[in-house]
Amino acid sequence: MTERAQSVLNGNRRALARAITLIESAKPSHRVEALALLDALRAAGPQPARQALRIGLSGTPGVGKSTFIESFGMMLVGQGLRVAVLAVDPSSTRSGGSILGDKTRMNLLAREANAYIRPTPSSNRLGGVARRTREATILCEAAGFDIILIETVGVGQSETMVAGISDVFLLLMAPAGGDELQGVKRGIMEIADMIVVNKADGDLKPAATRTCADYAGALMLLRKREQDPEGFPKAMLASAIEENGLDAIWAEVQALIAWRKSAGIWQKNRTAQAAAWFREEVEAGLLARLTEDFTLKSAFEREMDAVQRGESTPSAAAATVLGALKD
Amino acid sequence: MTERAQSVLNGNRRALARAITLIESAKPSHRVEALALLDALRAAGPQPARQALRIGLSGTPGVGKSTFIESFGMMLVGQGLRVAVLAVDPSSTRSGGSILGDKTRMNLLAREANAYIRPTPSSNRLGGVARRTREATILCEAAGFDIILIETVGVGQSETMVAGISDVFLLLMAPAGGDELQGVKRGIMEIADMIVVNKADGDLKPAATRTCADYAGALMLLRKREQDPEGFPKAMLASAIEENGLDAIWAEVQALIAWRKSAGIWQKNRTAQAAAWFREEVEAGLLARLTEDFTLKSAFEREMDAVQRGESTPSAAAATVLGALKD
Repeated sequence: MTERAQSVLNGNRRALARAITLIESAKPSHRVEALALLDALRAAGPQPARQALRIGLSGTPGVGKSTFIESFGMMLVGQGLRVAVLAVDPSSTRSGGSILGDKTRMNLLAREANAYIRPTPSSNRLGGVARRTREATILCEAAGFDIILIETVGVGQSETMVAGISDVFLLLMAPAGGDELQGVKRGIMEIADMIVVNKADGDLKPAATRTCADYAGALMLLRKREQDPEGFPKAMLASAIEENGLDAIWAEVQALIAWRKSAGIWQKNRTAQAAAWFREEVEAGLLARLTEDFTLKSAFEREMDAVQRGESTPSAAAATVLGALKD
Repeated sequence: MTERAQSVLNGNRRALARAITLIESAKPSHRVEALALLDALRAAGPQPARQALRIGLSGTPGVGKSTFIESFGMMLVGQGLRVAVLAVDPSSTRSGGSILGDKTRMNLLAREANAYIRPTPSSNRLGGVARRTREATILCEAAGFDIILIETVGVGQSETMVAGISDVFLLLMAPAGGDELQGVKRGIMEIADMIVVNKADGDLKPAATRTCADYAGALMLLRKREQDPEGFPKAMLASAIEENGLDAIWAEVQALIAWRKSAGIWQKNRTAQAAAWFREEVEAGLLARLTEDFTLKSAFEREMDAVQRGESTPSAAAATVLGALKD
């Protein structure tokens, strides 16, 4: 056990922050250290106490995600639980910046000793974000956090990616007119374990109640999945700002997880997630050869020129490049 | 020049049919022959006479795609043009069968000496369908067809794939109430050069006219693309069954292509398509190593077991597999 691994296991926050920075680094020597750290943590666990509950959370901008995480997180901390918040911002793959996960969005939670908020790393591709988030999840779990909230905005494939890291996936929605119900992408309805209609307060309360009933009806039309006990997926009301409905949501999440654990689905899901993660890493690594392997890269660039000049067919040019790999 | 290549270039239909069967084969020795054939055809061309116009066509079931292709194709044949029809059926990747491209759907066109209809090949993955359709397009072009119609149903990624093979992309729509307008996926609006509202006949004519105006309005809201001359993308009315509007659509397609050729966009687009095709072939070939290379496959399976038993982290296991590739 290295000192670095031990510090993370001890729940040292600075060690955790440094470890996440390490796994975010693209430098090859850092990568070697990161793999060693992850392996040391794996060998030390999993103890039951180190199996955090991973909650994925998505919702479009304006739905009140930050307020919900702040209120929900504070409730969990109030129950003696340790809460980590990770943010996945697919748009940062373009802007290169971090617009989510900013601690200033969650003032109260950020000041809690038992909470840890990590801003979004930037990356040049969603695959990179996925790897970093998965590994950061492992690190937070090893550091003894009980709950890991992984949030994302509803853009592109990021929800599917976050659902593939989570034990339970919540979709946060705003109150809406009945017409807007169709606005939910079908694919997202199908990965959500719970739709939470937020802003059920003040003038919006009647609309929120109607919207929640509409979603409940829509969810009943979906085909039952193996991982759903009776009554799931479920639509629930919340007011993050008035802190209403959060305890009921937490109770339902716990009931869902307890059912999945007893049915063997929780472990099966984690194993499938690890297998998918492994496959993606291998595939990404194979494709990276195109830019990292000198022979392959040269052949690729030379053949690309020939294709663009019309001197070779794409099929024949590809065969040539792949032949260079075999030699 | 091999006899096989010469027969295709001579426009021999049986030779063309056999050549398409050859490129559809997964057998390695057939693949070698297919690459040689494609390269021989490339070396023989492109002569201007051999540059067919590739028209992509999509639309959901029930929109009248077959009737449209039959009427549109017959009009083109009547003008002395040679027309090939290729069908891309993404659902056949699962069913293994051919539900589109059936000659019985296009009775008149199938009997024309100057038309060639090729049923959908089955494949186990969309990537395979893409390769076959691209190569079949090259073969039809070499065989002297002037127009290649590539049709697909609007499922998943198949429209994007067909648009990536086509010079011009038409989206066929049925008359609808104003509310249904939002049903068009935004991504498809953005790849269409023309929306054709079909069934502008009988009782549906008023609805078709309104729908066409609605789409015209919606298209104006889209940001102009480099490849769009003034007035494009465009919404037009058609009645495939009454053969109305087809000549106007053909005139607009010709005007669009003439503009793109004069602006250098046509050639630029074909070059970019060839480059994308080459890249996809190389990437698919690299990933195929996972199943074809014995060392890699063994390492992958062994590490996958370790990941699923929790004896290795996905990241470390992937690094081990990729290390096996390097040795």
